[in-house]
Amino acid sequence: MIKIIDGGVCAAKGFLAGGVHCGIRKNRTKKDLSLIFSELPASAAAVYTTNKVKGAPLLVTKKNISDGTARAIVCNSGNANTCNADGVMIAERMCELTAAALGIAPEDVVVASTGVIGQPLDVTPIAAALPSLAAGLSRGGSASAAEGIMTTDTRMKEIAVSFEVGGVSCRLGGIAKGSGMIHPNMATMLVFITTDCAISPKMLKRALSTDIESTFNMVSVDGDTSTNDMVTVLANGAAGNAVIDAEGEDFSAFMAALNTVTVNLCRRIAADGEGATKLLECTVKGAKDEKNAKIIAKSVICSSLVKAAMFGSDANWGRVLCAIGYSGAEVDVCKVGVSFVSRSGEIEVCRSGAGIDFSEELAKKILLEDEITIAVTLGDGEAESTAWGCDLTYDYVKINGDYRT
Amino acid sequence: MIKIIDGGVCAAKGFLAGGVHCGIRKNRTKKDLSLIFSELPASAAAVYTTNKVKGAPLLVTKKNISDGTARAIVCNSGNANTCNADGVMIAERMCELTAAALGIAPEDVVVASTGVIGQPLDVTPIAAALPSLAAGLSRGGSASAAEGIMTTDTRMKEIAVSFEVGGVSCRLGGIAKGSGMIHPNMATMLVFITTDCAISPKMLKRALSTDIESTFNMVSVDGDTSTNDMVTVLANGAAGNAVIDAEGEDFSAFMAALNTVTVNLCRRIAADGEGATKLLECTVKGAKDEKNAKIIAKSVICSSLVKAAMFGSDANWGRVLCAIGYSGAEVDVCKVGVSFVSRSGEIEVCRSGAGIDFSEELAKKILLEDEITIAVTLGDGEAESTAWGCDLTYDYVKINGDYRT
Repeated sequence: MIKIIDGGVCAAKGFLAGGVHCGIRKNRTKKDLSLIFSELPASAAAVYTTNKVKGAPLLVTKKNISDGTARAIVCNSGNANTCNADGVMIAERMCELTAAALGIAPEDVVVASTGVIGQPLDVTPIAAALPSLAAGLSRGGSASAAEGIMTTDTRMKEIAVSFEVGGVSCRLGGIAKGSGMIHPNMATMLVFITTDCAISPKMLKRALSTDIESTFNMVSVDGDTSTNDMVTVLANGAAGNAVIDAEGEDFSAFMAALNTVTVNLCRRIAADGEGATKLLECTVKGAKDEKNAKIIAKSVICSSLVKAAMFGSDANWGRVLCAIGYSGAEVDVCKVGVSFVSRSGEIEVCRSGAGIDFSEELAKKILLEDEITIAVTLGDGEAESTAWGCDLTYDYVKINGDYRT
Repeated sequence: MIKIIDGGVCAAKGFLAGGVHCGIRKNRTKKDLSLIFSELPASAAAVYTTNKVKGAPLLVTKKNISDGTARAIVCNSGNANTCNADGVMIAERMCELTAAALGIAPEDVVVASTGVIGQPLDVTPIAAALPSLAAGLSRGGSASAAEGIMTTDTRMKEIAVSFEVGGVSCRLGGIAKGSGMIHPNMATMLVFITTDCAISPKMLKRALSTDIESTFNMVSVDGDTSTNDMVTVLANGAAGNAVIDAEGEDFSAFMAALNTVTVNLCRRIAADGEGATKLLECTVKGAKDEKNAKIIAKSVICSSLVKAAMFGSDANWGRVLCAIGYSGAEVDVCKVGVSFVSRSGEIEVCRSGAGIDFSEELAKKILLEDEITIAVTLGDGEAESTAWGCDLTYDYVKINGDYRT
């Protein structure tokens, strides 16, 4: 039984967190340095952007957690430390400084950065702030840590759940930053998850790699894959359950808890996409297989025309069909059905690949809500998939176009 | 020697054209029915959208030109005749009516439609208008025909060239519609090209299929592939050259003329993309092979973040690097160089995958122009490619989002 609880990345036993303004960002009211610490050694797993241009912190993190363990996560906002000649050296220095402040080894530090690309990252303010940040870490620090990784996110994103593994109560929680933009960089998605569930590095990696295929990899704000995306999980075993080191009931329970947290964070990231006024969800049912279901869900959620129509609360199902048609998926377009769903109701607009009469008035009412599901049914099989995105708005253009004018 | 000349689709000998308002569109000042006619039998070739949802007219056209010949092109705007149960029957009826008005066989008619999807197309106004449209066809009718296929295009698009094949002067010209939006449909690209050069259906098909790979397939306004895209060429041989029926010097001369016209139309379509204020061109040089060059050029031109930055005249090279990195192309990102070029000058902003000092003032001046080239150099080989697109603006969102609100 999975229950939503408070505490974010500090909900799990043995985790402390905090965030401060150290001076990378000019606005003193914006936190720009966050730290998460496990009081016990922890299994660690991470997944990284597939962009060939990779931020220096990702390269250092990859090396540091190659042994499957880590104890701390340090992350700054305001500078991505990417495309800099000295980037790796600076990222390693951040690990050393964090390790010294916490009394752990530099190889046990996960490092991340988000913000400006191609501008040298001065480590001085980080060095100055880390000792007091480390000293001030607390069980109540998750929200501060969540704030410290925000760029132009409008809302802090944290979530935690409790669940049972072999009769033992465990906790798992995460914080995330979504699509914020800091000149002259692109959006970055960062997610940090902690759990006190005992799980081997190998199974933790398997759980994360499996989960992201149907969660973070199914989110799109604007189709641009960042250079600095990263999802990291630390699992310190403080809950006292028998270590999960193989598939089975316990692993499934862990996967379910992880999925609850990641889906929640996906929805928050999508809803807080740049300029977004609406969370869009596309559910695909009846696909030939999961691969085709995913291709279709993602094609619909990525379509600029679908996104703009949703901004205008326009029941423009032709654009949904068009996006299905060019997705590259194996699909019989003559069997496609489309409905729009929100808390104001549900309306079927397309059946068997052709339009049907529907009430424009009811459609408008449904689409004026801020969470819209585009429900696609195919007649090709039993597979399903869900993707998340947001509408395309004037503010998206403003944030990304008018930035310096 | 290729020379730009007047006359559009009527520049080639033996072609007549015209366009009228027949009543499909409510606005009486907008033409909505166009006709192009070859006085002689002509070789015909066409390429169609790869969208699995295909407009009914495309299916009928494909059947009609399966013998490699056609004599007329009829096209309406205001209704796409797509996703309609009776779509094929209506498209066939349009061919019959056109054939009757011109005294040719229905199988020699190419039919196209653009506009509303999923709404039945009433053939009555077309039937009423065709006899007088056919009777009024003229050598001066290209501009009228170009207007009749426009939807929300802001500019009529026509171009023609003269060239020599085996010492004989030939002409080739085209009209196009770009990305206009008519509720509730998506954009459609239609291109009709005529030539009096004598060329076999087989070689005409080869010329067109080869050419579009580096022209129309390298244009993107918003990444959404329409259901009704089509490019058609009619070649009636009126110039009197020896029929081109194999590769060689004559075929190369024809290809060069065709490419001059198609590149010109590509640029016009991109520049007149929905809401566009700027034509964007991405040139990629030094790629490993042509495939990788194309993938990179297209990834840059399709990036919402690059497009929005260009709207804001922001020299945001990090977004260009990001788009190269996630393109999926084989590329050594450490060797990438980026410059921005316009009629106001040229500025290098990235070398060897890292930023270099540059004058923000000069960059701004260059990017404030309405035709921008993003010049990407790789160090991976000798292959090149060019892609065309436009900036992402408030008006794109307005046209596609606010349509009914």
